Amino acid sequence: MRMYDIIQKKKENKALTKEEIRYFVDMFTQGKIENCKASALMMAIWFNGMNDYELNELTFAMAQSGDTVDLSGIDGFTVDKHSTGGVGDKTTLIVAPIVAACGGKVAKMSGRGLGHTGGTVDKLESIEGFSTSLDTEKFIECVNKTGLSVIGQTGNLTPADKKMYAIRDITATVDSIPLIASSIMSKKLAAGSKGIVLDVKTGSGAFMKTVEQSEILAEKMVSIGKAAGRKMTALITDMDSPLGKAVGNSLEVIEAVEVLRDRQHDELYELCITLAANMLMFVHKESFENCIEMAKKAVTDGKALKKLREMVAFQGGRAELIDDTSLFRKAEYIIPVKCEKAGYIYHMDAEKIGKVSVLLGAGRERKEDIIDHSAGIILCKKTGDQITEGETIAYLHTNNETITAQASEMYKECLEISDKKPEKRNIIIKTIR
Amino acid sequence: MRMYDIIQKKKENKALTKEEIRYFVDMFTQGKIENCKASALMMAIWFNGMNDYELNELTFAMAQSGDTVDLSGIDGFTVDKHSTGGVGDKTTLIVAPIVAACGGKVAKMSGRGLGHTGGTVDKLESIEGFSTSLDTEKFIECVNKTGLSVIGQTGNLTPADKKMYAIRDITATVDSIPLIASSIMSKKLAAGSKGIVLDVKTGSGAFMKTVEQSEILAEKMVSIGKAAGRKMTALITDMDSPLGKAVGNSLEVIEAVEVLRDRQHDELYELCITLAANMLMFVHKESFENCIEMAKKAVTDGKALKKLREMVAFQGGRAELIDDTSLFRKAEYIIPVKCEKAGYIYHMDAEKIGKVSVLLGAGRERKEDIIDHSAGIILCKKTGDQITEGETIAYLHTNNETITAQASEMYKECLEISDKKPEKRNIIIKTIR
Repeated sequence: MRMYDIIQKKKENKALTKEEIRYFVDMFTQGKIENCKASALMMAIWFNGMNDYELNELTFAMAQSGDTVDLSGIDGFTVDKHSTGGVGDKTTLIVAPIVAACGGKVAKMSGRGLGHTGGTVDKLESIEGFSTSLDTEKFIECVNKTGLSVIGQTGNLTPADKKMYAIRDITATVDSIPLIASSIMSKKLAAGSKGIVLDVKTGSGAFMKTVEQSEILAEKMVSIGKAAGRKMTALITDMDSPLGKAVGNSLEVIEAVEVLRDRQHDELYELCITLAANMLMFVHKESFENCIEMAKKAVTDGKALKKLREMVAFQGGRAELIDDTSLFRKAEYIIPVKCEKAGYIYHMDAEKIGKVSVLLGAGRERKEDIIDHSAGIILCKKTGDQITEGETIAYLHTNNETITAQASEMYKECLEISDKKPEKRNIIIKTIR
Repeated sequence: MRMYDIIQKKKENKALTKEEIRYFVDMFTQGKIENCKASALMMAIWFNGMNDYELNELTFAMAQSGDTVDLSGIDGFTVDKHSTGGVGDKTTLIVAPIVAACGGKVAKMSGRGLGHTGGTVDKLESIEGFSTSLDTEKFIECVNKTGLSVIGQTGNLTPADKKMYAIRDITATVDSIPLIASSIMSKKLAAGSKGIVLDVKTGSGAFMKTVEQSEILAEKMVSIGKAAGRKMTALITDMDSPLGKAVGNSLEVIEAVEVLRDRQHDELYELCITLAANMLMFVHKESFENCIEMAKKAVTDGKALKKLREMVAFQGGRAELIDDTSLFRKAEYIIPVKCEKAGYIYHMDAEKIGKVSVLLGAGRERKEDIIDHSAGIILCKKTGDQITEGETIAYLHTNNETITAQASEMYKECLEISDKKPEKRNIIIKTIR
């Protein structure tokens, strides 16, 4: 078998065999295929796509390219959740405790933030002492004792994906639906849970800018997961404005606690309850409506918050921060942003708001950048809200005084103010089972 | 400027600017752009092509990426000829002396053979003592004294093309018309002649398998050359069967001498006269018909043969070999191939015949392989010829006894024998000016 022939075949829009796909994935992972050949294949896939059989085989080969997580030591039904990334997305911090409170087992590996999107691992690390690097034994023990655990990636999971992504990232081949689907699903399959709920974001703050694209991606991923014998559901959800009120690490943990205290009934709450209900459907084989009720009850009766506290304590975090979020370290500068014009917020550029947050210190432009856990944004007004001239629309939290003026200006540029009230957008756009 | 954005743009089928093309060519030549990015761009060009402006700019940037040949020291009109490669193509050995005999100046850099196609440099090196590595001063002196010179590439000509080709060759992006056109034309522009006649081969032994593809390629190359201020003509010619009767280095030189002795009036002769006439039209501004007569006369009166002898002598070759070709060293084994079936030769697989010749020792599979100058094939019967059972259809010349049986079998597989006589194909299919 020759890589040349594999590239040639895909270039001519012929379907690759399982053997050809395995050959590429295995040899490339082992460093036996030059990067220039891999990037040529990625570009040919960008143009010609992959059929379902090819896509499944690519994903399975990538999932098996390194270690896989063995969750058989967990007593109960394991269920995972994945978001394609957005701004202010703290759903894991809310959904995992709800599901655990209702008897599901959430053994979750999460990532760090990069660019305009944040990462759950960074958010949790804003809790003093919290360790996101448990070994597998401790990870499973945490899930068995508390019902949930969230850690960073351990071991050599999906090295094929890491190598392929590194090439795609510099050769303009990231935005390919089969390559995105196989990248996400290979990691989810390797992570071992029996049920997976995908939160596919769409809109200005998401990677997929249109509902149509998001649907295609979601359908492909659901199909791959089912072919691998997993229970699968995908939600297409709105990410045209940031999710909730907080953007930034400790600010988002605080907001998650507010939701779990049943103090915030907004779109974030609605999304979290829906995600949790879809996960619980795998665990309990109950109707969607019953699972929604179950999830809501776990919030009102405080059991979900208790689960979060238990996990934080097990993973070495200072649990008093969950009891009293005023104990979180505050940023030195908290700068109000005032609106210069009255009207309705017609549109928010969520991606750009993510970039303001990075500027404030809350995110990374490059992998090696250090995060300021207390930095971020509190959004006082969101899309659809009416504002008067001079009203505070947001607070910028930062420890870097030099960028406050620039960040304020940039934040204002993220908003489109209009006389017209925009149509209300639903947070849940579609469910794909 | 970022290579990422250049790839992205071409991927999205937007035209690149002159600056973007220059950036890629210059930075890639300097080793400042990773191979994986170059191959991604090549693949995007394979899919989306290039418009005429992009193609001209790419070719000019490649032509200027290294040294260029200064032919201003040559007294007279310089005219070059390029063939896209075929099996048994010894036209340079015939055409250059004819043009020189008629007052044109042919200062030609040629290549070596690779795979199923031979190279003029290898053919000339079968003449004992012949040097194909003259320095520029000697090269120009040879042209001024004899009217012609053929040498191998000297200096650092079109390094961008060499680097791009090395990547294309392993990433299945060779067969792209804009990339082929820019590769050929960048070398021709750098080689400095004022007039260029292209011989674009089409058919089973050629890189371009259909007339349509060959025409598009020819038109693109003519257009690039004109944009660079050169006189341009392209002929589309048939390479469905090998050209002439000989395949292999010294065997082809001997055949060239036969043609120049006016002893062989076949398709090879017709092609050479036509190529020479087209070149002479640039030199003398005469009609095509007059130039055809001029070329024929140079053969009948022996002046063209005299020119070949002069060049051989100037470049250190044993000129007696031209006077008496029986002095060429013969291969140890000369094996007749007999036909097992009567009928007409309906089709010959020219590419495969080229491969038989490589097996016999006449060519290279890899660049570093050593050539046996006396090895090759004499074709006794060609497409359209009637054959009887047991008749000799070819002689295989080799010094490697172990492969003779295999080569005989393989040669027979190259022929399609039929009761039906095939339609006669014209050697000259089209002329593009």
